[in-house]
Amino acid sequence: MDSKKLAGEKAVEFIEDGMIVGLGTGSTVYYSILKLSEKIKSGLKIKAVSTSNSTTQIAESLGITIVPFNEVDCVDLTIDGADEVDSSMNGIKGGGGALLYEKLVALSSKKVIWVVDESKIVNTLGKYSLPIEVIPFAHHHIFKKLENLNMNPVIRKINNDIYITDGNHYIIDLFLKNIEKPYELENQLRLISGIVDTGLFLDVADFIIIGGKDGVRVINRK
Amino acid sequence: MDSKKLAGEKAVEFIEDGMIVGLGTGSTVYYSILKLSEKIKSGLKIKAVSTSNSTTQIAESLGITIVPFNEVDCVDLTIDGADEVDSSMNGIKGGGGALLYEKLVALSSKKVIWVVDESKIVNTLGKYSLPIEVIPFAHHHIFKKLENLNMNPVIRKINNDIYITDGNHYIIDLFLKNIEKPYELENQLRLISGIVDTGLFLDVADFIIIGGKDGVRVINRK
Repeated sequence: MDSKKLAGEKAVEFIEDGMIVGLGTGSTVYYSILKLSEKIKSGLKIKAVSTSNSTTQIAESLGITIVPFNEVDCVDLTIDGADEVDSSMNGIKGGGGALLYEKLVALSSKKVIWVVDESKIVNTLGKYSLPIEVIPFAHHHIFKKLENLNMNPVIRKINNDIYITDGNHYIIDLFLKNIEKPYELENQLRLISGIVDTGLFLDVADFIIIGGKDGVRVINRK
Repeated sequence: MDSKKLAGEKAVEFIEDGMIVGLGTGSTVYYSILKLSEKIKSGLKIKAVSTSNSTTQIAESLGITIVPFNEVDCVDLTIDGADEVDSSMNGIKGGGGALLYEKLVALSSKKVIWVVDESKIVNTLGKYSLPIEVIPFAHHHIFKKLENLNMNPVIRKINNDIYITDGNHYIIDLFLKNIEKPYELENQLRLISGIVDTGLFLDVADFIIIGGKDGVRVINRK
């Protein structure tokens, strides 16, 4: 069985009747949403909030009602994916562009589960890229600042047009190779005006469900 | 003569031929823009960038060409107003709602002049309110967080509708009375996900032109 499917479906076992559930974005969470929709059809009663327009669309097409995030006080459980996860259960998200809303929902959630396949587990974060969400009005100036900090910025494009997030911002991907001090980096970036948020998710996940060729394993914060 | 007019007009003396000039937002800067337009008609050659849709509109109606902020590498001189200024030349801005773009332009400017009337000078910042710009998707959650921090948040409205900034965000005004530690507060707020920027402008102004009933005085950073 597909390791993403294994991980995605396993997470749904954590959902209980009456919960407010946060739905992340991406190819692994897709399997969680599919499974959740089956369970709802079998009688499970939950409310869901979404972290992206694309997840809202998928969920609603599967009969899952999405409640606006601002209309709930907190979320019981959020299921989301991740692009990289290290041994401290810190991660990088935003490859799909939904980092800002994903972080906001996660930070208002009692529990956060990440569903990933083995390929996402790394020793040190930064192997691929770190996405940051920036204010379009000043993208050139923020880009130059990041260039001067030797962070190898690349503005994200899609079909030659600048990619626009659900929050109407741009994304700059930073190619850093090794993020040795993620907490320091997070603070450094967040204090640059014009950076709305970063793809660094530190101390956010409570459980990680890792799908591999031999099944799933679940790790949790000590 | 009106003290705002005195201060606003005085600032234009700092503008030299060939400069890229940042134009702030508000009732005092309005007089700078008027004066600048006269000087341009008399032959002064400058390029201008704007910090708000309203300033762009006013400037263009007066024959001042506005260049997109992302098309310049830096700004030579920015003239802006402020809602409060303390004895360390730190200030609060954003009463008019333009704080984010004003801060971004100021931080890319070689020199920043604030034009204010005497009523804006305070011993300690926070007498009135501190505006912060927030992500609409999560405004309820950010509001609750600020409430728990006893920061007396009020979401800004205009004619019963939530006020929307030029960057398509919301503004929450914090009523703090006395901001004893502005640097700590700035960092605390900026590290809350969903807060895009704050109206605290620390170490930003190089000159402050203060209009009073006896004329103007100029103070500058030591």
